[in-house]
Amino acid sequence: MLGGMQDFELRVSTLIDHAAREHGSREIVTRWADGSETRTDWAGVARDARRLAQALERLGIRKGDRVATLAMNHARHLVAWYGITGMGGLVHTINPRLFDDQLAFIGNHAEDRVLLYDKAFAPIVERVKSHWATIEHYVCFDDPGPNGFEAWIGREDGDYAWVTGDEREPMMLCYTSGTTGNPKGVVYSHRSTVLHAITELQPAEFDLSTQSVAMPIVPMFHAVGWGLPWAGAAVGIKFVFSAVNEPKILCDLMNREKVTHSAGVPTVWFSMFQHMDETGIVPEHLQIVTIGGSAAPRAMIERLMKMGIRVNHAWGMTETSPIGTMGAPSADWDDLGFDQQVTQVSMQGKVPFGVELRVVDDEGVVQPRDGKSSGRLQVRGPWVIQQYFREEAPAIDAENWFDTGDVAVLHPNGTMQITDRAKDVIKSGGEWISSVELENAAVGCAGVAEAAAIGVHHPRWEERPILLVVRKPECDVTPEQIQAHLALHVAKWWLPDEIHFVESLPHTATGKLLKTAIRAQYKDFKLAAA
Amino acid sequence: MLGGMQDFELRVSTLIDHAAREHGSREIVTRWADGSETRTDWAGVARDARRLAQALERLGIRKGDRVATLAMNHARHLVAWYGITGMGGLVHTINPRLFDDQLAFIGNHAEDRVLLYDKAFAPIVERVKSHWATIEHYVCFDDPGPNGFEAWIGREDGDYAWVTGDEREPMMLCYTSGTTGNPKGVVYSHRSTVLHAITELQPAEFDLSTQSVAMPIVPMFHAVGWGLPWAGAAVGIKFVFSAVNEPKILCDLMNREKVTHSAGVPTVWFSMFQHMDETGIVPEHLQIVTIGGSAAPRAMIERLMKMGIRVNHAWGMTETSPIGTMGAPSADWDDLGFDQQVTQVSMQGKVPFGVELRVVDDEGVVQPRDGKSSGRLQVRGPWVIQQYFREEAPAIDAENWFDTGDVAVLHPNGTMQITDRAKDVIKSGGEWISSVELENAAVGCAGVAEAAAIGVHHPRWEERPILLVVRKPECDVTPEQIQAHLALHVAKWWLPDEIHFVESLPHTATGKLLKTAIRAQYKDFKLAAA
Repeated sequence: MLGGMQDFELRVSTLIDHAAREHGSREIVTRWADGSETRTDWAGVARDARRLAQALERLGIRKGDRVATLAMNHARHLVAWYGITGMGGLVHTINPRLFDDQLAFIGNHAEDRVLLYDKAFAPIVERVKSHWATIEHYVCFDDPGPNGFEAWIGREDGDYAWVTGDEREPMMLCYTSGTTGNPKGVVYSHRSTVLHAITELQPAEFDLSTQSVAMPIVPMFHAVGWGLPWAGAAVGIKFVFSAVNEPKILCDLMNREKVTHSAGVPTVWFSMFQHMDETGIVPEHLQIVTIGGSAAPRAMIERLMKMGIRVNHAWGMTETSPIGTMGAPSADWDDLGFDQQVTQVSMQGKVPFGVELRVVDDEGVVQPRDGKSSGRLQVRGPWVIQQYFREEAPAIDAENWFDTGDVAVLHPNGTMQITDRAKDVIKSGGEWISSVELENAAVGCAGVAEAAAIGVHHPRWEERPILLVVRKPECDVTPEQIQAHLALHVAKWWLPDEIHFVESLPHTATGKLLKTAIRAQYKDFKLAAA
Repeated sequence: MLGGMQDFELRVSTLIDHAAREHGSREIVTRWADGSETRTDWAGVARDARRLAQALERLGIRKGDRVATLAMNHARHLVAWYGITGMGGLVHTINPRLFDDQLAFIGNHAEDRVLLYDKAFAPIVERVKSHWATIEHYVCFDDPGPNGFEAWIGREDGDYAWVTGDEREPMMLCYTSGTTGNPKGVVYSHRSTVLHAITELQPAEFDLSTQSVAMPIVPMFHAVGWGLPWAGAAVGIKFVFSAVNEPKILCDLMNREKVTHSAGVPTVWFSMFQHMDETGIVPEHLQIVTIGGSAAPRAMIERLMKMGIRVNHAWGMTETSPIGTMGAPSADWDDLGFDQQVTQVSMQGKVPFGVELRVVDDEGVVQPRDGKSSGRLQVRGPWVIQQYFREEAPAIDAENWFDTGDVAVLHPNGTMQITDRAKDVIKSGGEWISSVELENAAVGCAGVAEAAAIGVHHPRWEERPILLVVRKPECDVTPEQIQAHLALHVAKWWLPDEIHFVESLPHTATGKLLKTAIRAQYKDFKLAAA
């Protein structure tokens, strides 16, 4: 066939080129850990990224090499993403909240050659340095001295042409922090990242244009910062970064810089609410808040919506770049009452074009989209993992389905609702009890600070749930009161056989309940009535 | 590099699969030429597209074959787009407003094997049929009989898997209706079309989500319907089609179906305004109106904006899929006064990520983005033409730049402003005079119905403008009055040397001034004062 369209490789360097050329003066604001603030713009980020690319090449870094960051959100971290990927390297974002042995493992597994880090994480670097076998160069982002990041790249002239190549080449690496085994590396390609970035702009996703002023509270090391640093360049949004996540600092910054879009995990909004209640100060310009990482409680969604804010309840993982689903308003949104709208937003939303979902039972049989049949959630698409870094086996089945480890139902209109993690689900008499729903119901009971539901062996039902409860200080809530409260929210056969009070519950490095440890502790537990 | 992301071919069949799966019950409404209305939905369109694919294969149509449509906007035309491309064919949209010899030429040049047509265009088919050498099958979209479209595809069961292949394979063909020479064919690929469709969803472009109810008034044969039939599927919008473009019909339908988005050329809105003035009925739910095809007058933009409607003033061509630029609100939009906002929207807007623009002078020297330096507009990007159908020479230069034939300036913030067509610009003393601006200023003068500005030979200045004016009925506006009016709007040296009154001016098949004919007529014209 003669004739046709032009062909351009979808590389992330074209994103920063676009931002610098078409939105060059749109600002990037950073509030640093020491309280100082700096301002640059997309033209400045592009210039500095070229300088960084030159500085890395001067160190001998070449296409395919890994350059790690251990940093919060700020303009220099943004420069690092574009500079490293622009010279053909892979930017490897490391989560500083991991345990030292995990940090050592992933640095060595990735074979990082350079580490760029925040001064706040210098103690981590000191502790782990001797365990990192491949890192040759350490540069501190916010060291103002002659060895610091600015002085280093400042010695380059920025006269640099991005490394070119196939759009399927790798450009980023991020490890998942599983609760068992070693972390696994997810490798992103230029193509997957650009397709994901364009998709995020949609009104039903992050809804981004150059008018947007976005403060990502989700750190750039968490599930790759939900893709915002790439998507933001595609339309030249104004970014407002804070290297410190304290609600007062965030709220003041939001109001001063007129932040319209923000994104973070539920705990961020819990502390923001507390700050609002204490001071009466609210983020006045916020239009859209995206919540992901774990399920947002209904009350949180309701409060934000009552403030006139659109809540994007999202689901995704490091393995999905991370956008899997987003809870945008449905076609019939305006016909719904407020409570129905909140109910809709409380679910995890729908897929954008590109992503496909299905739910399968333990035998791999695809379940109907009936809003009832729960099963393992599987996903596929052009920004979904194919294979973990340096793993020989593919991460997917023959038809590209990736098993997410989540348990979900799909509603007839395509809305997805996470009900549990597969390994946390309690299997009782052939039916599934959601540990998450039990826990969520329990923390709604006055006097309950935290709760964990696990399945313990039962001779007849295979498993039955027990509930471990941490009481709030000076509260003497009883098992009977908790049972009575639970009975209002879950099916009768879901009610835990026993409720135990504990002093505390174990957590992962990222603050999630460490169910594996709890289950191990109760492995041989015998129910009194069984 | 081990590990990485999944790989999916970006094919338009994945768009209709997404729409059917995730937005299956979202409606597609058609108001037919005979006044009847039908409703289907995305699931129905997908089902019928599969049936059409089967029916085409039964006729022996194979991957790469061309299947033409001669049709207005309706659900069956939408089915045809997805059915033809889904079985690997190229959908070739033919503009019924072309002259018979052009229609014959492009049908033969494309080697169309099937023609799907509207009953309203049956007279054209009858006239041209004997000249079409390759068309083997004719099917009428709205013939309710046993040979009509519905009966034909109704004999298939829809149990069909889309043809797969490389995303760079061709899937669509559309001819440009130039004012000189034979029409040229533009071939689109699956990849270019999918990237273009995702881009159109952005808030700064068409701003589409499943909540959108869109009525494209731009016909699906014009610059490939501005891409809306593809973009709409990517988010499952509700489509409202009318096979007849009468303002009363369109306005009633808009209000009844709560149309939020519409798109069309300026003349559409002129007739809509007239209807509004006569009846007092306005399209009540419209939020966004996209205007392209030719420049929208300031008064039109102002009137729509005063109705609370966002006006997307767009520029593009058949060769650019067609989105080149779109006039979305700028970052500082809220700080602008209403007049400044109208001024901004009156220009042609900015490029989305993917498209690059530049302006060059006659020697090919790139001009600065200073809002003053005008020159030939050039464009490149992943949905810009590389080569016309069956042409041996590429349509672009060595760096992929396609010369648009438009004359434009680029403003410092990236906003593009079309000032003329390159071949219509009047070159006087080494400087360029915009014929379009002269004409626009002239039609603002009371008593002027239409005006054409052309350059005629001048011994000293090379060219000088003369203005040909058609007066409104029973108006006796004088050359002096017109000159006085023009002097308020253009530089003094732009004022035409002579003004002549004519009975009428020649037009192209698509309603544009036929400047070539006018210039030919005045080729040997001698200025009285030269």
